[in-house]
Amino acid sequence: MIKKFLMTPGPTQIPPQVSLAMARPIIHHRTAEYSELFDRVNDNLKYVYQTGNDIISFASSGTGAMESAVVNLCSPGDEVLVAACGKFGERWHDLAQAYGLIAEFHEYEYGEAVSPDDIARALADNPKIKAVFVTHSETSTGVVNDMKAIGAAVADSEAVLVSDSISGMGSAEIRTDGWMIDVVVAGSQKALMIPPGLAFVSVSGKAWALAEESKLPRFYFDWLKARKALGQAQPTTPFTPPVSLVVGLDAALSMIREEGLDNLFERHRVLGRATRAAIQSMGLELFSPDDDSSSSVTAVKVPEGIEDGQLRRLTRDKYGVQLAGGQGPVKGKIFRIGHCGYYNYSDIIVAVTALELALNELGHPVQLGSGVSAAEQVFGKEAV
Amino acid sequence: MIKKFLMTPGPTQIPPQVSLAMARPIIHHRTAEYSELFDRVNDNLKYVYQTGNDIISFASSGTGAMESAVVNLCSPGDEVLVAACGKFGERWHDLAQAYGLIAEFHEYEYGEAVSPDDIARALADNPKIKAVFVTHSETSTGVVNDMKAIGAAVADSEAVLVSDSISGMGSAEIRTDGWMIDVVVAGSQKALMIPPGLAFVSVSGKAWALAEESKLPRFYFDWLKARKALGQAQPTTPFTPPVSLVVGLDAALSMIREEGLDNLFERHRVLGRATRAAIQSMGLELFSPDDDSSSSVTAVKVPEGIEDGQLRRLTRDKYGVQLAGGQGPVKGKIFRIGHCGYYNYSDIIVAVTALELALNELGHPVQLGSGVSAAEQVFGKEAV
Repeated sequence: MIKKFLMTPGPTQIPPQVSLAMARPIIHHRTAEYSELFDRVNDNLKYVYQTGNDIISFASSGTGAMESAVVNLCSPGDEVLVAACGKFGERWHDLAQAYGLIAEFHEYEYGEAVSPDDIARALADNPKIKAVFVTHSETSTGVVNDMKAIGAAVADSEAVLVSDSISGMGSAEIRTDGWMIDVVVAGSQKALMIPPGLAFVSVSGKAWALAEESKLPRFYFDWLKARKALGQAQPTTPFTPPVSLVVGLDAALSMIREEGLDNLFERHRVLGRATRAAIQSMGLELFSPDDDSSSSVTAVKVPEGIEDGQLRRLTRDKYGVQLAGGQGPVKGKIFRIGHCGYYNYSDIIVAVTALELALNELGHPVQLGSGVSAAEQVFGKEAV
Repeated sequence: MIKKFLMTPGPTQIPPQVSLAMARPIIHHRTAEYSELFDRVNDNLKYVYQTGNDIISFASSGTGAMESAVVNLCSPGDEVLVAACGKFGERWHDLAQAYGLIAEFHEYEYGEAVSPDDIARALADNPKIKAVFVTHSETSTGVVNDMKAIGAAVADSEAVLVSDSISGMGSAEIRTDGWMIDVVVAGSQKALMIPPGLAFVSVSGKAWALAEESKLPRFYFDWLKARKALGQAQPTTPFTPPVSLVVGLDAALSMIREEGLDNLFERHRVLGRATRAAIQSMGLELFSPDDDSSSSVTAVKVPEGIEDGQLRRLTRDKYGVQLAGGQGPVKGKIFRIGHCGYYNYSDIIVAVTALELALNELGHPVQLGSGVSAAEQVFGKEAV
């Protein structure tokens, strides 16, 4: 009997109460019933975002919402800054290029963090930079960039700051307003605990001013259409929303409100801490940083002599634990344990157990229980 | 006790077996398990589309997939033809304008059909027209355009033919290959019987040739990226797909395969026929055409002296029957009964009963049972 434990950084496990909510008979989206739901969802999203800014939602993956930021903020030939330290940071550069922007591209090694000072210097050197695109939680490496410092570096410039917080929202804190981040992109399938297909952007006043002037063509991802629909007596979206996912999000956000933001972020920090302790205690090497910033995903170097695909197939097929592989230049060199969303101590203990057993079976000796007991030490101090 | 009957042309009722499938634990989309599912879904979609062409899917509403057709087929300044006979036809024009195309706009009155001869003439007059955009089933009026004749009108020209079949796919037959339709757009939330959030385009060889040359900027909706991901050893999508909806679609498509296309289309024709018979027998006037082409949605003129919103609130709040209102210039003048998807005789009988009762309560006398018995006459000849 296989019991499955999805430990990937998106999709993530869906709480049963969310699955049940999504299985309810579908409702129509041009009704008072839907508007009331949509209003509540938007209010609760603002709570998680820690913002008073408008939040716009799209039926799309997170990439669609990222694209919306590019096409609503920029005009052809605009200069922008992309600071990337992994696969998802690179996506901002791909997007900027697809839309004919002149992108100053700061590329950091996979595993490094973006330097806020570099951004401040670049903005001082080139006052024509209109937007800065960065990744908050870089899912491909486990690095979480210091958005507070990056916010401070950008705030005094003319540029808007755009953060991809798809795998960070709800697991690594982001204070949208407090840290002065103009546009924050999030997705449904990470710490927001629902299936993929729904994505969000928050838009500050500074960003709205750019959206009103921007000349890139757009229709489906147009923020102005979305703002108009949001402002109606019955708030809605310009195009048919993914109703079942919005219903699921409503259930997930009410769980988040009940837990409270402080507990939510602390739980994720503890999950990261326990995972790192277990990994190191098993004699494996971390690829993601060994500090509390890394609360969404833990990246681990594949030990010498072990084939990554074989390891992950074994944990999945024999022990039901689905881990994620590496991406881009670290493909085959790292594996990743996702713990953003509906995860607690039990998932980490099971994942670590599966790793201990699988590594031994593949001829990489690990003392059974060494990882588990280290994780237990962490959970013993702070149960999550 | 209210039992709810969603009778709108999208979202439509979700079969319980689809809801149950979507409530299963979520799976990761970069796995053999997902690719196998995705392969089967694509094969079954091709069956409903009646095509051997590639089918590309997006996490988006139908409008997103419509936009994908515009941005993948055209370059700035291209001349295109839009033939519109309702709200969704107009959307093609809005899209063409948003992307700087020169659109020859053939506008027909709401309730009329597009003339294939007009299209043939326009193409003969202007050989520079690169694409023709039309609506198959115009959800706002109940008109279903003659895509076979339109296909024949376009096939000999250089232009590609693009059909919005969002509310037609699976309820009003479209023979993608047989009728020579280059690009067919569909959405999940109509006759495909799953919630909104997943949309499709089929792409012919003629359309691929344009996509390879087109110069409009795009990223999320890029067909070439999608083709590359489809062609991998484990077929996938470039960006995270809406996994739960794809799982639901798999269940819905297996219901469709079991029913068979001939039965599927005949069921929808009978549902339309019974609805029209009931409406006329109640002394109401049809707005949609009184023929078997109109199989997705029946549009009815609001009787003199009745306020549309009041009527639909009464059927909904007292009898649980949610009808759709009019859109654009016919807002308040018509209401619509959707019957594309998971509908059979029982839904029509209940909807007609609710209408009979509500109209009487609002002071518009209707002989009780007059509509129901007319519908029964139809169902008695052909049970669906």
